[in-house]
Amino acid sequence: MASPSTEPVAIIGASGALGFGLALRLAHTGVSIAIGSRDPMRAEQTAVRACELLPEGSFSAHDNEGAARAAQTVILSVPFRNQSETLANLKHALSPGQLLIDATVPLAAAVAGKATRMLGVWQGSAAQQALEMVPDGVRVVSALHTVSAASLADLEHPLDQDVLVCGDSRADKRGAAELIERIDGLRCVDCGRLEMARTTEALTALLISVNARYKTHAGIRLTNLPTALWE
Amino acid sequence: MASPSTEPVAIIGASGALGFGLALRLAHTGVSIAIGSRDPMRAEQTAVRACELLPEGSFSAHDNEGAARAAQTVILSVPFRNQSETLANLKHALSPGQLLIDATVPLAAAVAGKATRMLGVWQGSAAQQALEMVPDGVRVVSALHTVSAASLADLEHPLDQDVLVCGDSRADKRGAAELIERIDGLRCVDCGRLEMARTTEALTALLISVNARYKTHAGIRLTNLPTALWE
Repeated sequence: MASPSTEPVAIIGASGALGFGLALRLAHTGVSIAIGSRDPMRAEQTAVRACELLPEGSFSAHDNEGAARAAQTVILSVPFRNQSETLANLKHALSPGQLLIDATVPLAAAVAGKATRMLGVWQGSAAQQALEMVPDGVRVVSALHTVSAASLADLEHPLDQDVLVCGDSRADKRGAAELIERIDGLRCVDCGRLEMARTTEALTALLISVNARYKTHAGIRLTNLPTALWE
Repeated sequence: MASPSTEPVAIIGASGALGFGLALRLAHTGVSIAIGSRDPMRAEQTAVRACELLPEGSFSAHDNEGAARAAQTVILSVPFRNQSETLANLKHALSPGQLLIDATVPLAAAVAGKATRMLGVWQGSAAQQALEMVPDGVRVVSALHTVSAASLADLEHPLDQDVLVCGDSRADKRGAAELIERIDGLRCVDCGRLEMARTTEALTALLISVNARYKTHAGIRLTNLPTALWE
């Protein structure tokens, strides 16, 4: 069996900006990407676009259910507006033992509000909503909210930032970190239990505010951490 | 008239860990510090302790009301449990034109909960509660939640992190930034309106979670920002 990091990865919502950037960056490290979209035609177009940008990449196109069945690790990268419906539709596609990396951010933009504001999610965070909705035995980790989609999609752009990872299982967080850290310039930091995701998710709104001020794509770094973060 | 940055600064709650660290660091840059505490005796002891650690520093001891009257810039550094009562008591001590830098964090520890959890504040954040409670004309900026009290109090410890500043007036934020950036190793970033403080405050809880995991005093850095942040 191949090591977990060289297994294929499914990206639900890969036709969106963040999902597409992740697909490119992960494929660039040799990971086969199952591109998922609600609309199979859109998945196909996304795969073609990805192949044009990264001819050596391995991309397959699926509807979201098909993508979720194609990999043990599934990145959920959809607008908050669609998160609940998407997870309801994946109920029979996801199965126990799979790792779901939730990157959803409950921005108020989902209800036509400002992108610098958050919605209150009764479960606490989008990640906790995901945990509530996935079938029993699917493991949920929250990550990737603070990485700029534009920076990811530009393979020439050097990344230099942390990915804040939350989850209730250290092993699951480590699995997500091993995958994400294949991407040069991303360092994963264990930020604690899944409930901490309400703050890491909110950092997206904060960075959108900072980006508007400084016309940039800012990222997050935690300082004064030890060298080995996943021992 | 002296430049704003060399005027005295009052620290309400200077006998607490964060307030004390700020008092030392600012005094180290030549700022006279009006040390405020609920208990004037405790303020006196704090001033003595500060003088022992930094004999060249300028410290005066006051009750909180006296401290608030002693400077145009007032840093509010009290536990959330005491923020409302403290501000109510300062109603006649604060006056229009003063700048209040609120560093309060509504940790659930205020009600015997975990320090990795936040309380929901109906106004949105402790900073917005402060704005609601100060006399008209007092300007409120939110900052300093992510700087470790222990790192501040150890003058030998090099700092290397950002201070996330929120407020509704760019000029007020710049004033706070000019003061805070006197401290070597701290860079201030404009994070937007005061309402963004709900996220910057919550970062304290996130860092407490990270610190527990990694046995450190982590700080925050934003990456990919321009060089000049306060033009």
